[in-house]
Amino acid sequence: ICKPAEMEKLMENDVFMAFSTYAAIVILKMMLMAPMTAYYRLTRGAFANDEDVSRKPAEERKKLLRAHPDVERVRRCHQNDLENIIPFVVIGLLYALSGPELSTALLHFRLFTGSRIFHTIAYVGALPQPSRGLSWMLGMLVTFSMAYRVLSTVLWLCIHVIHVKMS
Amino acid sequence: ICKPAEMEKLMENDVFMAFSTYAAIVILKMMLMAPMTAYYRLTRGAFANDEDVSRKPAEERKKLLRAHPDVERVRRCHQNDLENIIPFVVIGLLYALSGPELSTALLHFRLFTGSRIFHTIAYVGALPQPSRGLSWMLGMLVTFSMAYRVLSTVLWLCIHVIHVKMS
Amino acid sequence: ICKPAEMEKLMENDVFMAFSTYAAIVILKMMLMAPMTAYYRLTRGAFANDEDVSRKPAEERKKLLRAHPDVERVRRCHQNDLENIIPFVVIGLLYALSGPELSTALLHFRLFTGSRIFHTIAYVGALPQPSRGLSWMLGMLVTFSMAYRVLSTVLWLCIHVIHVKMS
Repeated sequence: ICKPAEMEKLMENDVFMAFSTYAAIVILKMMLMAPMTAYYRLTRGAFANDEDVSRKPAEERKKLLRAHPDVERVRRCHQNDLENIIPFVVIGLLYALSGPELSTALLHFRLFTGSRIFHTIAYVGALPQPSRGLSWMLGMLVTFSMAYRVLSTVLWLCIHVIHVKMS
Repeated sequence: ICKPAEMEKLMENDVFMAFSTYAAIVILKMMLMAPMTAYYRLTRGAFANDEDVSRKPAEERKKLLRAHPDVERVRRCHQNDLENIIPFVVIGLLYALSGPELSTALLHFRLFTGSRIFHTIAYVGALPQPSRGLSWMLGMLVTFSMAYRVLSTVLWLCIHVIHVKMS
Repeated sequence: ICKPAEMEKLMENDVFMAFSTYAAIVILKMMLMAPMTAYYRLTRGAFANDEDVSRKPAEERKKLLRAHPDVERVRRCHQNDLENIIPFVVIGLLYALSGPELSTALLHFRLFTGSRIFHTIAYVGALPQPSRGLSWMLGMLVTFSMAYRVLSTVLWLCIHVIHVKMS
């Protein structure tokens, strides 16, 4: 097997490997919301499309094309994942390339992953607040912290380049 | 033109070039759902914002601020794209960096792209089930297969590193 | 601090640094829609989950579980960000790796960032059309232009490889 040397280097970088692992885990967690929505649609009998209920008897069809609170709850949780997990992955990729310490990076990735798994449990299980709110906020803070590191790294590199050019 | 050597290497990697092509195609396909929504809003006369109907006569305005089944169908298709195409792009990027065979990678990228184009046709055209369900599931399976490769590559590299350190 | 050489190179590439900056800015702008939604939910008294209103007196609870036009407006703006900013980030990453001129790249990134900040002001402030429509279209055109560059770069590289192999 012949892999380009520079690809291997990217995958041999320990922070990038850690990022790949946790990014794959949170994306897979997000994708599992789709089968969960399908499960609730089937068990609660609440569909969105005519063609999804076409095999049912005609008199039942109209009743099945409805919104059910349990389905809507799972969909809101899925939407919240889209709004939070994708920013984490994008900012996290840039953060991994900014050369942080492995231990600091792992702390960020693990806090985020834990907070989102707990967020899903709190949302789908309708746990009392502020459990869902706090887990959502922890995830946001992790992503903000990584974005701060990315922006300050770029800023310092720019200042460094200007300094070198002037001297 | 002076391009950094390492950038050229990334773009000279054939798997990464294949990934770039198919990622751009599926993202463009997803973006086309927005003009399609606009088209259905205009032809069906179903808008979401007051300012979008402000030039119409006052008595018509309220009637135009409504949900239309055709518009909602395109929007659900767009939402399904967000939930499936973005995970494909994120996992696919990590997969391309994990050094797969070009032929295996092309099979993954082409199956996914084909499944999502068919999914859109099946959704917007309201084709009988299980056409939409099967094309959705095929796309999910391709992304799961790539995520499995990413996670197992990282795992093997970790075991390799530990082995090297111990000997 | 020991950073892998190749990581440093990616971050030392000026187009990639510019991309990182603007990608972080637009993703942060998108993430700020979530606290804004929370603010409107609290001030307008419009919630989506039973557990979010469990501390209120029982007779008020049902009234608070409702959709409010201001909340829905911010949510549509957030959704529009998801549909436009994430494609920009994905295509923009591939574009940055395709080796464009720094000045051309900066023009793309700045036009997009400006158009999306104005789009949010136009949407949340309900400015008269076509202000929102034009800012949305400008963002789309920037992303299409970058996607065109990515696809044509890959195509030219493929033709180049075939040419080299044949000669």
